[in-house]
Order: sequence, then C-alpha cells, then structure tokens
Amino acid sequence: MPAVQDFYPDDFAHCYGCGRLNREGLHVRTIWQGDGTIARFTPRPEHMALPGFVYGGLVASLIDCHAVGTAAAAVERAAGREIGDAPAPRYVTASLHVDFVKPTPHGPELELIGRATEIAGRKVTVDVEVKAGGVLTARGRVIAVSLPDSMRTPAHSAR
Amino acid sequence: MPAVQDFYPDDFAHCYGCGRLNREGLHVRTIWQGDGTIARFTPRPEHMALPGFVYGGLVASLIDCHAVGTAAAAVERAAGREIGDAPAPRYVTASLHVDFVKPTPHGPELELIGRATEIAGRKVTVDVEVKAGGVLTARGRVIAVSLPDSMRTPAHSAR
Repeated sequence: MPAVQDFYPDDFAHCYGCGRLNREGLHVRTIWQGDGTIARFTPRPEHMALPGFVYGGLVASLIDCHAVGTAAAAVERAAGREIGDAPAPRYVTASLHVDFVKPTPHGPELELIGRATEIAGRKVTVDVEVKAGGVLTARGRVIAVSLPDSMRTPAHSAR
Repeated sequence: MPAVQDFYPDDFAHCYGCGRLNREGLHVRTIWQGDGTIARFTPRPEHMALPGFVYGGLVASLIDCHAVGTAAAAVERAAGREIGDAPAPRYVTASLHVDFVKPTPHGPELELIGRATEIAGRKVTVDVEVKAGGVLTARGRVIAVSLPDSMRTPAHSAR
C-alpha cells in the first residue's frame, strides 16, 4: 500500500520520524484504512521507558508523524486525490497532545489509527489512537499546519 | 552538578530519553537552576524535521523526560531533600502537551527550563520552555504521576 511519506518531495523527506531519506529514523508510514489512517511500528529494544514498557516520547513521536501524514492525506482526499496521485503536501505540527491511558507494553507491534476531524484553512486537526495488541494505550491530538514559508529555506535543496 | 537521573534506582534507569543505563538513549539530565530546573541537549544530525530544523518528536521527548525529572526534584525539595540526598522517586507521564511556538533551528544546544507549578498528591504539573540560542521555540506542559504499581514488575530486576 502506498504511504503518504513515499510521496513527500525529496527536500521534505528527511524527518527523523517519517522521512524515507533519514537513514537513522523511524520511518513511520501512513496509509488509508477506510475513512481513517493506520501506521504500524515495532519499537526497537532501546525504546523503553522502563524494561517491559515503551518510551512515552517514542509514542508521542509516532503520533506526531502519523498525524501530520494523516493531515496531508485528508487534505488531498478532500481535493479528490488519493495517495500517490500527486506529491504529498507537507504539514508540520503546531501542537501535540498525548494522554497516556495506560502503560504501553514493549514487544508487540503498535498500531496507530488516525482521523482528521477538522480541516480549516491551513489547519488540520487529527486524532490518533495508539494500540498495542489491540488494547488502547494512548490517545493523541495534533494540530497540523501547512509548512510555513519560514521553513522553506535554501538549505533544503542543499542536501 | 548532580542530575535527578543520576539517582534513579538502577531498575528505573533504562529510559530511552533519560536513563543513564540506556546506551542508545538521549541521556537527558535535569539539574536545579534557582527555583527552576534546566537540561541541555544538542540534537544529533539525524534529529531533523526538515534540513535546518529540529524534529518535533525529539523536542517532545526532551520535554517529557525533563518534566518527569523536574517532578521528582520538586517533590524531593518540598520534602526537604536535594538531588543526591536519596534515590530519586520515579515519575511517569500521564499527559504531555507541546505548543511549537516557532521552528527550532538545528545546530545550537537546546536549553529546557522546567518548573513544577503544582504538586497534588501523586500528581505533579510541570511547565517547560525550550530555547535555542536563547530564543523560545516550544512550550510544554506535563502531568507527571508517581510510578504506578502496574509498572513495577519482576521484569525490572531481571535486567
């Protein structure tokens, strides 16, 4: 299945969380699943909070990138385009909120289910549920905004 | 200067963000600075959102660990103890909120300034400001809670 992040322009594909060109990164991939989106990620051994439990900062990072990808996919679908029909627009995070509902066990693959709940001009609100072995462990809400001009610098084309 | 994380018991010192025993981790260190706390971190080359800007998930991760460390330090100080007087109590994150005020430039050392604004039973509220080159780029608020019994498992002593 094609992921949003497969279609970010090269200049915007270096993100530690989801950039396909970041060799050290997490490589979050956001795909459609019905009216929502899904990303799957298996934490690395070092991604622990305590032995046996996933690091909350990783959970927050996965929510962040999946939400931004979901924002891009939702805006494109609203315009009549599916993932891969065109380069994906690049959104960034204005705010990130995570409620850790219960400890996330370290071991199972995590599923992140995303849903864009509002598109308002440059701003997209995305809700994300994180599940481990089918059990909800965290909820996230991200306000994503389209990439501001202040982040479009010549540095992008220099790498 | 002694950091809170230097005094987490070994069983709770494996966190990817701040555990001194996590060899791959970020090693956030929280120290007192007057009535607040400070942590310093220089993002690695791969910790980018776009070339030239720091990855928001990393900013969230630093806020998370520094806030939890600040919660421990504040609770201890309220009880008359300074960092190093006793093992640090271990807090975990119930919720994490980050407002990305402006893009964080990639390169300068980041400073995280923490302040515990409320201690209410097991729950501590901590506000964190993130600065790059002295400029505020993100604000965080964390609700930290003392480690629940559900995270105290035999696995801890097995590693």
